[in-house]
Amino acid sequence: MERKFGLAIHGGAGTILKSLMSDELQAQYEEGLEAALNTGYTILEQGGTSVDAVEAAVASLEDFPLFNAGKGAVFNHIGGHEMDAAIMDGSTLAAGAVCGISGAKNPVIVARAVMEHSGHVMLAGEGADEFAVQQKMEMRPDDYFFTQQRYDQWQDALKEDKVQLDHTDKKFGTVGCVALDKAGNLAAATSTGGLTNKKFGRVGDSPVIGAGTYANNDTCAISCTGVGELFIRSVVAHDISCLTEYKGMSLAAAADLVVMGKLVKIGGEGGLIAIDKDGTIAMPFNSEGMYRACRDSSGRKEVLIYK
Amino acid sequence: MERKFGLAIHGGAGTILKSLMSDELQAQYEEGLEAALNTGYTILEQGGTSVDAVEAAVASLEDFPLFNAGKGAVFNHIGGHEMDAAIMDGSTLAAGAVCGISGAKNPVIVARAVMEHSGHVMLAGEGADEFAVQQKMEMRPDDYFFTQQRYDQWQDALKEDKVQLDHTDKKFGTVGCVALDKAGNLAAATSTGGLTNKKFGRVGDSPVIGAGTYANNDTCAISCTGVGELFIRSVVAHDISCLTEYKGMSLAAAADLVVMGKLVKIGGEGGLIAIDKDGTIAMPFNSEGMYRACRDSSGRKEVLIYK
Repeated sequence: MERKFGLAIHGGAGTILKSLMSDELQAQYEEGLEAALNTGYTILEQGGTSVDAVEAAVASLEDFPLFNAGKGAVFNHIGGHEMDAAIMDGSTLAAGAVCGISGAKNPVIVARAVMEHSGHVMLAGEGADEFAVQQKMEMRPDDYFFTQQRYDQWQDALKEDKVQLDHTDKKFGTVGCVALDKAGNLAAATSTGGLTNKKFGRVGDSPVIGAGTYANNDTCAISCTGVGELFIRSVVAHDISCLTEYKGMSLAAAADLVVMGKLVKIGGEGGLIAIDKDGTIAMPFNSEGMYRACRDSSGRKEVLIYK
Repeated sequence: MERKFGLAIHGGAGTILKSLMSDELQAQYEEGLEAALNTGYTILEQGGTSVDAVEAAVASLEDFPLFNAGKGAVFNHIGGHEMDAAIMDGSTLAAGAVCGISGAKNPVIVARAVMEHSGHVMLAGEGADEFAVQQKMEMRPDDYFFTQQRYDQWQDALKEDKVQLDHTDKKFGTVGCVALDKAGNLAAATSTGGLTNKKFGRVGDSPVIGAGTYANNDTCAISCTGVGELFIRSVVAHDISCLTEYKGMSLAAAADLVVMGKLVKIGGEGGLIAIDKDGTIAMPFNSEGMYRACRDSSGRKEVLIYK
């Protein structure tokens, strides 16, 4: 009998309300989610690795302009784009991450190159960009990352001197994917443009292994989206892994305890997607909505936005 | 009865052999360790907080030129200094971290300012330096960070085109402190100059909350030193915390399992210092030596270098 396989993706969580969404815009979001979901699923179905699947699905979400990652990334305080991404291979615990990267079309692909070719796990800032160029990653000029919607958000934030528009708007723009392949290997990847109008080279939880991104074949693979600071302080992804490994909790129970319990207690709004070594998928969130989707070899397929 | 209090510090681990050390140099290292230990201990003894104690002890280690942090930080590939630091308050799970910071005399003090005044947890690169200036931190010109020993190491590394001199030399230059104060609050702090001749803005485990630095009043406080990449992938500090919390292991047993078992299995050379909520101290390492010291209110006082 063939092993179960599957994946889940997210495009960020927050105050996403049906009352504030046009039918047309909703259809666009669903289309973006479904395209990324199918990209990853096809790889898994054809016997590809979970690392290939999460990389391809996240790259697809990065290329989709409505999500805050890659094309569509928000503007920082000085009108640039500083993106963070990470990837982790649960079969080896190998990991790669970049933070504050500016010119790479797909930060998740750079993160994978960090994992496989740098001898390091995390590269930051201009150094990460240099590495991307050296690795012949696809680079793009500033105008590639321009979208009118993000520009307008940045201008509003500048006018009101809001450092963290995404916080006050309660939208945590991040994309991610977790997958289990036919060989039983887990992987996770996350990518984000961070906070509109952000200053001081702020880094969120996405590129922090154990916080926003984690995968371990013995337990599960997780990708988070939410108030990054609280996710870092709670070491969210690794905490769920440890609850299943050391306390014997189910993935759903552990994810619920962390997202609906621990995080809520400290004001950590957001959510996550998770898949365990048996192919069980969990997509809990404590905000109004989370762009999310999942598909597995048992025939389950969901594309969801609201509670 | 007064509660037990105490602290432990480290100045890095690696191939530190008595056969390669002069008596004079050994005395200098011991002096540096003892000064930092007493600085932190005096704060705790006078009823100060564990956060104040770890900050002051690490700042003292940063100011000591033989350790790879602050003054004495190694040179990166282009002859500059990129330092990382983190601090965490176990009573609130508040945390602050900087990576790739260049001009601040004491990166650990900047990390504390990040924790208390930035609204963020992690700041990277030039943005972190801007924040330090805005917060009126003590800044220093490049020549403050010059030490002949580090310059010679860098020149050797350049000649041999070694990207990771510390790895081939098997010395992991990092400093750190963990403390329990009279009020029962735990804290941890870590600071490093990273790898000699490092490129691409490499970030190690020191500023990664959960990997190189973690504190939680419910469990323990931990500061690591070693091959940063493997410590990140193993989420070392948080793993020990979870083993005590979810599996009920003692601090010593959990720290040993991770340092002497899990890390050894993947080639993760290094060590750590840990203190738990009862004041128990553990200082395990799997390398030849680790600059370390501890002191507590029961009268225990140790300053050690070799196995």
